[in-house]
Amino acid sequence: MVSKAVAKYIHALHLKKYRLRHGAFLVEGGKSVQELLSSGLLTERVLLTAEYAAKIPPLPAKVPVEIVTEAELTQLGTLANNTTALAIARLPAETELLPAPNRLLLALDQVRDPGNLGTLIRLADWYGLHGVVCSDTCADPWAPKTIAATMGSFARVAIWQRELPEWLDSLPAALPRYGAHLEGDNVHRLALRPGGVLIMGSESHGPRPEVLARLTQRLYIPGAGGAESLNVAVSAAILLDNFHREL
Amino acid sequence: MVSKAVAKYIHALHLKKYRLRHGAFLVEGGKSVQELLSSGLLTERVLLTAEYAAKIPPLPAKVPVEIVTEAELTQLGTLANNTTALAIARLPAETELLPAPNRLLLALDQVRDPGNLGTLIRLADWYGLHGVVCSDTCADPWAPKTIAATMGSFARVAIWQRELPEWLDSLPAALPRYGAHLEGDNVHRLALRPGGVLIMGSESHGPRPEVLARLTQRLYIPGAGGAESLNVAVSAAILLDNFHREL
Repeated sequence: MVSKAVAKYIHALHLKKYRLRHGAFLVEGGKSVQELLSSGLLTERVLLTAEYAAKIPPLPAKVPVEIVTEAELTQLGTLANNTTALAIARLPAETELLPAPNRLLLALDQVRDPGNLGTLIRLADWYGLHGVVCSDTCADPWAPKTIAATMGSFARVAIWQRELPEWLDSLPAALPRYGAHLEGDNVHRLALRPGGVLIMGSESHGPRPEVLARLTQRLYIPGAGGAESLNVAVSAAILLDNFHREL
Repeated sequence: MVSKAVAKYIHALHLKKYRLRHGAFLVEGGKSVQELLSSGLLTERVLLTAEYAAKIPPLPAKVPVEIVTEAELTQLGTLANNTTALAIARLPAETELLPAPNRLLLALDQVRDPGNLGTLIRLADWYGLHGVVCSDTCADPWAPKTIAATMGSFARVAIWQRELPEWLDSLPAALPRYGAHLEGDNVHRLALRPGGVLIMGSESHGPRPEVLARLTQRLYIPGAGGAESLNVAVSAAILLDNFHREL
C-alpha cells in the first residue's frame, strides 16, 4: 500500500496545474509503463500489481517500485480499471526546435480532444517526424488520456508548445507551411516532400484564421463528397502518407 | 415537458437491447438531427430547445416536434450537455449487400470502440463507399456514441452486420479481400482500384486469424518504424486514400 503522501501526489498529477507545478506526469497501463522504462525519460516511481510484476522482466534497480493491489491502482489512477502498472515520470526538458526544409514538423492548432492529440502524436512517431508543435490551446500533451492514446509514442516524440501565429512568423520565409483545406490543391497531383511544417486545425473549426493566413500551401484530400469533413487525425494521416510517398 | 412514457422510451433507447426491440435509435445534437431530417431515414419525434428552434428553418410538418428545456434535453440524452436537439429515428431496413469488383466495401472485424466505428463510417461516407459491413462483435452502429462520431454520416452510409468469416466465404472467389498487415505489400508500390472488400481489424489485435486467413492481399503502410501500429481509423484512412488515387 502506498503512503498517503504518494497517493495525494498521484491524485494531484491527474490535473494539469499540478503536473506543471511538480514537473511530472502519470503513465498508466503495463504497455505504456514499459515504453516509459525503455525510453530516455526519467521515472520517479513505478507501482505494479503482484500479478503483473511476476510476468515482466525485472525493472531497472534505480527505479523505486511498489507492489499494490488492482483496486488500489485503479483508485489511484484515471483508468476505469488498471490491473497492471502505473508510473510517475518527469516531464521531459524541451529539446531544440529546429524547423528545416528537409524534415517535417506537425503543428496542431487548438486540437482540444486528448484522444485526437494522442493519436496525432502516435502518427508523428509512425512517420518519424521531427516532432509535434502544439498551440497553447491544444489539450495537454501530458494528460493521462493523451498519454494513453499515444500508445507509447509519448516516450519517443518531441513536443513543443508555442503560440502558433507568432511562431510561424518567426520561421524562415522560404520554409513551407502546409495545411488541410477544402479549397486547397489536390494532394494526389502534388509531389510533396517531408519538409517544413504541416499544420492541422481543431476538429470543429479547422485552423484559426490567423493561422490559415500564414499557410504557404493549402492541401485538399480528394473524396466523393458525402461527408463534409474528416476527423483531424484521419486527415493528418492521409496527408502524411502523401508526404512520404516514393516519387 | 415530454410525457413520462416518452422519457422512458428515450432512456430505453440508450441501450442496444431496446434499440433492437423498438427498431429505433437516438440522434443527438442540432447538426446530427438536421442531417437526419434531410435524409431518407424516418424520424419518429424531435425535441428542440426554444432557442434552437428559433434559429433553424421550420421542420417538415409530418414530424412531431416538442419544445423542451436544455436541462430536460440533457437529462433525457447521453451527451454531457445538449443545448439544441434530440431525435428518435427508425432503424433503417437493410439494403441489398452487393459486393462487386468495381466498388469498395469496408468490412470491420471487432472494432469495439464506438468512436472509432463512427469515424470509420464517416470515412466511408467521405470516399462514397458502397457501405460498411460490421462483424457481430463490433460496437453497435446505432449506439449514441457511434452516431455522434459519424458527424452526420450515419444518415448516408449503408450498414450491414455479418459473421465475417462466413460472409467472406460466401463471396465470389475472384473478389479481392484486402487487409492491413505489418508484413503486407507496400501500398505505395501497388496500383489499387476501389473494388472488393477492405477489412480492418480491432484496435488492439487486428483482424482475427480466421479473418486474416481469408484475405487475398495484405497491405502495408510504410512508416519510419517508431510506433508499432496505427489507430484503426487512421490506417483505414491511409489505405482508402491509396485506393482512390488517380493512376
